[in-house]
Amino acid sequence: MDTRPIGVFDSGLGGLTAVRELARIMPEEDLVYFGDTGRVPYGGRSREILVKYARQDTAFLRSFHPKAIVIACGTVSTTALDVLRAENDIPIFGVVGPAARAAAHVTRNGRVGLIGTKASIRSGAYERTLAKLRPGLEVTARACPLLVPLVESGRFRPGDIVAETVAGEYLAPLRERGVDTLILGCTHYPLMKAVIGAYMGPDVSLVDVGEQCARWVKRQLELDGLRNQRPGAGRRRYFVSDSAEDFSDLASLFLGEDVHGGVEQIDITAYE
Amino acid sequence: MDTRPIGVFDSGLGGLTAVRELARIMPEEDLVYFGDTGRVPYGGRSREILVKYARQDTAFLRSFHPKAIVIACGTVSTTALDVLRAENDIPIFGVVGPAARAAAHVTRNGRVGLIGTKASIRSGAYERTLAKLRPGLEVTARACPLLVPLVESGRFRPGDIVAETVAGEYLAPLRERGVDTLILGCTHYPLMKAVIGAYMGPDVSLVDVGEQCARWVKRQLELDGLRNQRPGAGRRRYFVSDSAEDFSDLASLFLGEDVHGGVEQIDITAYE
Repeated sequence: MDTRPIGVFDSGLGGLTAVRELARIMPEEDLVYFGDTGRVPYGGRSREILVKYARQDTAFLRSFHPKAIVIACGTVSTTALDVLRAENDIPIFGVVGPAARAAAHVTRNGRVGLIGTKASIRSGAYERTLAKLRPGLEVTARACPLLVPLVESGRFRPGDIVAETVAGEYLAPLRERGVDTLILGCTHYPLMKAVIGAYMGPDVSLVDVGEQCARWVKRQLELDGLRNQRPGAGRRRYFVSDSAEDFSDLASLFLGEDVHGGVEQIDITAYE
Repeated sequence: MDTRPIGVFDSGLGGLTAVRELARIMPEEDLVYFGDTGRVPYGGRSREILVKYARQDTAFLRSFHPKAIVIACGTVSTTALDVLRAENDIPIFGVVGPAARAAAHVTRNGRVGLIGTKASIRSGAYERTLAKLRPGLEVTARACPLLVPLVESGRFRPGDIVAETVAGEYLAPLRERGVDTLILGCTHYPLMKAVIGAYMGPDVSLVDVGEQCARWVKRQLELDGLRNQRPGAGRRRYFVSDSAEDFSDLASLFLGEDVHGGVEQIDITAYE
């Protein structure tokens, strides 16, 4: 039994879809969340800058002495996971492995689609992981830089012609290729599930990276004897690098619970 | 005669529309540009963070001993101009004053529209300046957070249903209000001029902040005897806080000239 908190970070809001899932399946665990809202979005940035930001995010979370850190950000998971693992002596979980495992397991025709930010797609991390898990899988990948700004502007619901047009243009080559499984490789995308699902059709399985990651983390903590068995609800703390107020409004939407008053602003550049 | 360079900064690419204009009307001046591509976009951030970033951007440009600094960013101009002026002993130019002056001069019915980023609109800077220039003007302002990501994704041309739908939704209240002058309060927006102009109609004058700012800078430098009269073309240097390569592709589009090989990456957090 280990009562230390689990640290979670993301570039901004998206990681909250993973927090919601972690809290749902492990309600008794303490969670510390950091959203780098002062430097969001990460998706278009270079590897060098991403590694620097990821190190600072990790250093901040380590000040809470967590038992594990979850990178609830597709972009960082694909570009900086190895660096963070090499530099830290606690388990570091990313979203690539769990999602790739789920996709390799679910696909019947061996054609897997992948959407993510520019940096995630450029990294080739999903392709490499899928090739190891199940050689011969065909992966069709597509960078979707506009989906994060659309979600953060509240344009993600069915019937929104802008969300549907943009998603449709990004997804057309994947549908044409006949993928039967689609990895939503960014923690923002679950909010667009209905639009994406309607376009791809009912026969395509959507793999939600935050959800898969949360399940994987739970299993690993159990195997390592690191779960907190204390009854009752764990404490959740939220930190951001820009205004706490701006964050709270949208965060409540992502989490499905009110976090006003529970969010604190910190200076992330002070952590190295 | 003063051969020192003019420093120009922006959160990323948008400021290049001002650089293009500065270079066109003062071809003999040396220009040093900094685009904070490692932390773009600025438009949704809080005042506190924006002031911090603006101070660092200014400190970097001052290392070139410029004769003046142009804030080619609507967001910083509306939130941090006063701070930067108080802290620096060289002229600091923003985009608000020149654009407000042009709008106050151009409007016939006294109804002025304004579009910009969230931070720009929240600041109220245009309203305050317009009220001083011509009391009684009616200003209708609208934050347009999706326009910058759309422009940076290449979606700004007439016929693009996404660009037209999003712009139309933002602009509808301004058209209904009957504005005859519209301030494009962000240096990204000139690329959307055709879409915006088609929606607003031929009787609405569009005020381009980068263009107005460049004209104003030229006039002020002449009044202060700070112009460079040396014949020949000035030198232009470009610096960014993320990958120089990624920047070069889009920058060439904004500037209408090739800058590959002429862009350098720097660590902006090293300047205070």
